[in-house]
Amino acid sequence: MNFAGLGAKKGIDDTGFGTNAQTEGHRLTNKDGSVNLRKTGLPIWQRLSFYHYFISMKRWRFLASIFLFYTTVNILFACIYLLIGVDHLNGITAAGTGFEQFTTAFFFSSQTLTTVGYGHISPVGLVANIVAALESFIGILSFAMVTGLMYGRFSRPRAFLLFSEHAVVSPFKEGNALMVRLASAKNNHLTDVEAQLILAFHVGEEGKVYTRFFPLTLDIKRISSMAVNWTLVHEIDANSPLWGVSENQLREARAEVMVFIRGFDDTFSNTVQQRTSYQASEIVYGARFVPMFRRSDDMRTTILDLADLGRHEPAPLKESKI
Amino acid sequence: MNFAGLGAKKGIDDTGFGTNAQTEGHRLTNKDGSVNLRKTGLPIWQRLSFYHYFISMKRWRFLASIFLFYTTVNILFACIYLLIGVDHLNGITAAGTGFEQFTTAFFFSSQTLTTVGYGHISPVGLVANIVAALESFIGILSFAMVTGLMYGRFSRPRAFLLFSEHAVVSPFKEGNALMVRLASAKNNHLTDVEAQLILAFHVGEEGKVYTRFFPLTLDIKRISSMAVNWTLVHEIDANSPLWGVSENQLREARAEVMVFIRGFDDTFSNTVQQRTSYQASEIVYGARFVPMFRRSDDMRTTILDLADLGRHEPAPLKESKI
Amino acid sequence: MNFAGLGAKKGIDDTGFGTNAQTEGHRLTNKDGSVNLRKTGLPIWQRLSFYHYFISMKRWRFLASIFLFYTTVNILFACIYLLIGVDHLNGITAAGTGFEQFTTAFFFSSQTLTTVGYGHISPVGLVANIVAALESFIGILSFAMVTGLMYGRFSRPRAFLLFSEHAVVSPFKEGNALMVRLASAKNNHLTDVEAQLILAFHVGEEGKVYTRFFPLTLDIKRISSMAVNWTLVHEIDANSPLWGVSENQLREARAEVMVFIRGFDDTFSNTVQQRTSYQASEIVYGARFVPMFRRSDDMRTTILDLADLGRHEPAPLKESKI
Amino acid sequence: MNFAGLGAKKGIDDTGFGTNAQTEGHRLTNKDGSVNLRKTGLPIWQRLSFYHYFISMKRWRFLASIFLFYTTVNILFACIYLLIGVDHLNGITAAGTGFEQFTTAFFFSSQTLTTVGYGHISPVGLVANIVAALESFIGILSFAMVTGLMYGRFSRPRAFLLFSEHAVVSPFKEGNALMVRLASAKNNHLTDVEAQLILAFHVGEEGKVYTRFFPLTLDIKRISSMAVNWTLVHEIDANSPLWGVSENQLREARAEVMVFIRGFDDTFSNTVQQRTSYQASEIVYGARFVPMFRRSDDMRTTILDLADLGRHEPAPLKESKI
Repeated sequence: MNFAGLGAKKGIDDTGFGTNAQTEGHRLTNKDGSVNLRKTGLPIWQRLSFYHYFISMKRWRFLASIFLFYTTVNILFACIYLLIGVDHLNGITAAGTGFEQFTTAFFFSSQTLTTVGYGHISPVGLVANIVAALESFIGILSFAMVTGLMYGRFSRPRAFLLFSEHAVVSPFKEGNALMVRLASAKNNHLTDVEAQLILAFHVGEEGKVYTRFFPLTLDIKRISSMAVNWTLVHEIDANSPLWGVSENQLREARAEVMVFIRGFDDTFSNTVQQRTSYQASEIVYGARFVPMFRRSDDMRTTILDLADLGRHEPAPLKESKI
Repeated sequence: MNFAGLGAKKGIDDTGFGTNAQTEGHRLTNKDGSVNLRKTGLPIWQRLSFYHYFISMKRWRFLASIFLFYTTVNILFACIYLLIGVDHLNGITAAGTGFEQFTTAFFFSSQTLTTVGYGHISPVGLVANIVAALESFIGILSFAMVTGLMYGRFSRPRAFLLFSEHAVVSPFKEGNALMVRLASAKNNHLTDVEAQLILAFHVGEEGKVYTRFFPLTLDIKRISSMAVNWTLVHEIDANSPLWGVSENQLREARAEVMVFIRGFDDTFSNTVQQRTSYQASEIVYGARFVPMFRRSDDMRTTILDLADLGRHEPAPLKESKI
Repeated sequence: MNFAGLGAKKGIDDTGFGTNAQTEGHRLTNKDGSVNLRKTGLPIWQRLSFYHYFISMKRWRFLASIFLFYTTVNILFACIYLLIGVDHLNGITAAGTGFEQFTTAFFFSSQTLTTVGYGHISPVGLVANIVAALESFIGILSFAMVTGLMYGRFSRPRAFLLFSEHAVVSPFKEGNALMVRLASAKNNHLTDVEAQLILAFHVGEEGKVYTRFFPLTLDIKRISSMAVNWTLVHEIDANSPLWGVSENQLREARAEVMVFIRGFDDTFSNTVQQRTSYQASEIVYGARFVPMFRRSDDMRTTILDLADLGRHEPAPLKESKI
Repeated sequence: MNFAGLGAKKGIDDTGFGTNAQTEGHRLTNKDGSVNLRKTGLPIWQRLSFYHYFISMKRWRFLASIFLFYTTVNILFACIYLLIGVDHLNGITAAGTGFEQFTTAFFFSSQTLTTVGYGHISPVGLVANIVAALESFIGILSFAMVTGLMYGRFSRPRAFLLFSEHAVVSPFKEGNALMVRLASAKNNHLTDVEAQLILAFHVGEEGKVYTRFFPLTLDIKRISSMAVNWTLVHEIDANSPLWGVSENQLREARAEVMVFIRGFDDTFSNTVQQRTSYQASEIVYGARFVPMFRRSDDMRTTILDLADLGRHEPAPLKESKI
C-alpha cells in the first residue's frame, strides 16, 4: 500500500495515543468517545473510582444497585437481630414461625435504616439497642451517600451532543469536503463551541505497522453559540492528508476520524466536552446532508428535526484526485 | 432596499446561527437570551434533560411540582394500602367510612414517606409491611433527589445582570454611538467582565433572504470589575456596519443586536454568562442614558439606583451619514 | 495640587469604576475586597440573591438564623394545632394549663418537623393530620435547603489569603519599591497565582474631581505555586505613576492601591480570587518586611510564621525624586 | 563544588519557592505533591480550613471521625437526660441500675439524633422535651454536614495519576534524556494534559547556599488525550541545565525534579492537577522504561499494565559530557 501523497505530510505526535499499532483493525476511540483500552496490574479498589463508576452508570442500573444495597443491608441486620434473639425485639411474638420472625426482624431493620421508626416493634436490652443505634447511624450515612451520588449524577455537566451516524464526503465549493453533523439533543445551550478533527492512519513502514495522526483543518472551527445544528467541514484540498486518498485506501489503512467537541454550557456554567469517532466504514463517499431545520407553521420560530441529523442524499463528488 | 455601505463590510459566519433566514421578522435570540428554536424528532425523554428543566423552572412552579409529587405518591400508596385491606393497618378502625379509611391510609402513607413514623398507625402482616418498607425507601430516594435539585437551583451560577430596556443611539465624541447599559442586580460581584455585540441583518440577495452577522466593536470590551454599572459603547464610525444606515433601514432589515456578557463570579468562583438581544424596534435614536448613581447622604459610599438603569433623555444626534 | 509627573502617564479606563469621584476621601474598594457601593431602586427580593447572602454570612449568624427558623416554624405550627384544638393531638390532656398545652403542641410540632415522630403524641382527625402531613413535608424541604446551604458554605472556593496590614515603600535594588506581602493562611494550596496592582488617584481637573487609575507593574506578577509567602514588588522607577510623588501628595490625592489575586486551588480544583486595598494612610514609607520563615529545629522542613506577615522594620529609602 | 556549565544558564524566579535554602538536604516538594512547609503564628481555627481537612482525610479516618462524633454527642446527651432525671424519660424504669439508666438514656439519645424515634422511650415534661427538640435539630444539622462532606469527598476532582517510582536517564536519539512515566490509574479520562518539569539545585555562592530553579524543556509538553501512558522526555542537550552535570554532582547539589501535571477530567468536567517530585537519589542513570501495554488476546483492545509503570531495564548511556 502506497501513501505517496500522505508521506510528505507532517503527522502530529501529541494525541496521547502511542504510534505502535496495538490493535488490528479495531478502534482507537469507541463510538461513545471512550478510549479502547483495558487496565490491569492493580487491584480493583485501586483501579476504580467508585464515584466515576456510579456517576457514569445507566439510570436503571443505578436505581437497582441502591435497591439491592437496601435489601442486602436489611437482610444482614435481620439475621443479626435473629441471632440476638427475637425476644429482644418488643412486638415480635416468639411463638411465630421462623419465617414470621425473620420478616418481622427484616421490617424492624428497614424501619430503623430509613429512620421511619414506627415503634410498634422496638429493641429491648443492651445488644439489640446497640445494633439498632448502629443501624440507624448506617442508615444516615447511606442516605448521605445516596444524596451525594444522586446530585452528582444530576449535575454532572454533559454536552448532550448527537452526532450524525455517518461522516460524508460531499461536493464543496470547487472540490470536496469531509463533513460531520452534530446538534445538541436536549434543552441545554452551548456557547463558544470548538471542534477538532484528527485522522488516524495505520501505515506499514519497514515491515512494522505504525499509527500516524493528522489534524484535519476545519472551515469553521469555533462558533460562538450552538444555536442550531453545526456541520463540521474539512475541505479536501492539496494540504489535506485525505487529498488523493481513495475510499479503498482509507479502509485498507483502517483510518479513523476522531472528533472532539468542547463548549461552555449555559445552565451548568461549566465547560463540557464530548468525543466520538468514525471508522473508514462509517464514512460515506458522494453524499450530502439534507437540511434539518424548517420554519414553524406560524413563521415565528425555527424547528430543528433531530431525526434528520444523519440523513444524507447522494451527491456526485467533484473531479479531483480522490 | 439598498445596503450599499453595508455590502462592502465583512460579515462573520461563526455565530452558530445559519445564514438562511428561517423566521420572518422574528427574533433569533429571545429577550431572556435563549435561542428562538424548537426541537423535534426525538421522544421527549431523549430530548429533555430533567435536571436542566427543574433547575431553570420558576421558583413557585418548582415548589408546586414537589408538592404535587408528594400528594400524588401519597394518594397512590393510600390506594395500595386500601387494596391490601384496612385491617392490615393497625390503628385504623375497619368500621370507619370509606373516606375515613382512605384519609387514614393517606396519612399513614405520608408518615412513611417522610419517615416521621409516629407509629399510632403501623403496618400489620407481610404485604403491608413490604409496601411500607418500599415506601420509606422511595421517600429516602425522593428526598435525596429534592435535596440535589434544591442545591442545584441555589448554587447554579448566574450573572444576575439587568439590561436597559432599550438600546440608544447617542451623540458620542465627534459622532454617534450605539449604547446598551447593564448592571448586576444583586449582591453578587463579577470580575473580568467581557462583552460582545453582534448585529444580525436579514438582507435580500438574488431573490432570497439571507441573514448576515457583523461584530460591533466596543470602545471598552473588557473591564476588570463590574463595580458599578457598565455602558457598552459602539462608536458608529466609517468602519461600523451601522454607518450610514438609517433607523428605517434597520427596521426594514429586521436588524437585531445580540449582546453576550461573560464574567467571573466572586462568590461562586465560577464563570457566568448572560445574553440578551435588541430588535430594531427596541433601539431608540437620539437619546442618552441619564446617570444612575449618586453619592450617599453621608458622602461615604456610592448609591446605584437600578430603577434608573434604562432611563434615557432626548439628545440630538451629531451630523453624520446616519 | 500638581501632578506634573503623573499627568504625562497614561491612565486606564477598564477598571469598572467610574471616573467621577463619587465619594469624598472614602474607599473605592473595602478592606475585605468588596466594592464600596449600595444598590437601590428594586425591591429587596429582586435585589438580593438569598444564596449569596446565606453563603457569605458569618458562621455563627448562619447557625443562629437556622435555629431561629426552626423555633419560629415550631411556634407557628404549635399555634395552628392549638387553633384546631388540643383534643386533636392524642397524648395531650385537655385538662392542662394553656402553657402546658402550648408546649406540648410545640414539641409535637418539633417532632414532626424533624421527622423524629416518637408517636407518644399523635394527630387525631382530618385537619390535624393534614397539618401534620404538611409540616413533615415542610420539614423535609427545609432540611434539603439546609443541606444545600451547608454544602454551599463548606465547598465555596476561597483563596484564604492573608495580606500584610500595611503596604511598605522599601529600598529596592538601585531605587525604591512599593511592597505588599501575602500568604495563604490555611491548609490550602494555590498554584498559578497572578497578582494585579492598580493605583487610584482622585485628581482635580478644571474644578471637578476625577478618579484616575494606573496599573502598577510588578517585578514578578505570576508564580507557579504559592509555596511560601509572596511579596509583591512594584519598582518605583521613572515609568511608575508613583515616581516623584511624595507621601503627602499621595494622601492629598486620597490614593488607593487595589490588589487583585487570582489562583487555582488544588483541593477545590477551582479558580479562586481575593481582593483588598490600601489607602494612602496604610502605606508606610521607609520600611521593609522582616523575613517570616525559618528552618524547623530538625532542619527537615520550613516554618512559616503567619504572625510576622505584616511585621516591618525601618529602612531608609534610596535617593530618588520621592 | 563547581557548576561551570550551569552558571551560565538562566534560572527562573517565579516558582513561588524562595531562593534561600531553608532545609538541609530535604525536599521542597513532598512525594505526594504537597509543599514541605509548616505554618505557625495563628490559632488553629484560623489556620485550618475544616472542609479542606475533612475532604483530604483518608477514608477510614473520615468514617471513624463521624462515628466518634455520633458516639460523643450521644454520651453527652445521655448525661444531660440523666441530669434532668430518668423519670422524665417515659419507658425507663427508675428502678434500674445506674448503668441500665445510662444505656437507656443513650439509646433514647441515638433515636432522637438519627430521628428514628421509635417512641417506646419518649420525653416527659418541659426540660426533657426541650432537650429532645434541640437534639433532633442538632441531628438534622449534623446530617446535613455529613451529607455535604460526603459529597465533597466523592466529587472532589482528582487526577488519579500514578508516577513511576524513579525517573530514569536513558539513551534518546543522538544523546540522552531524563524521563518520567505516568498513567491515569483509574476509570477516569483526562484530556488536554500539560506537563511542566522544574529542576531545583542548591548551589553555594559566596559562602551562602541558594536554591536555584531551572525549567526542563519537554519533547512533548501537551497531549490532547491521556489515552494510554505518557512518558515525559527532557532531552539533555547543550541547552539543558543537566548538560555536563554528573550523577554525583546532582546528589551533591541535592537536586530535585518537580513535576506538575494539569488536565481536564471528562467525567468531572473540571480541571485537575497533580504534582510530585524526584530527589537526586530517585533518578536512575543508564536505564530505560520497558513498554507497559500489549494487545489483548482477541486483538480487539489494548491492555495497559499499571504494575509495569515504573519498570525499567539497564540501557547504556550515549557518549556525551554527562
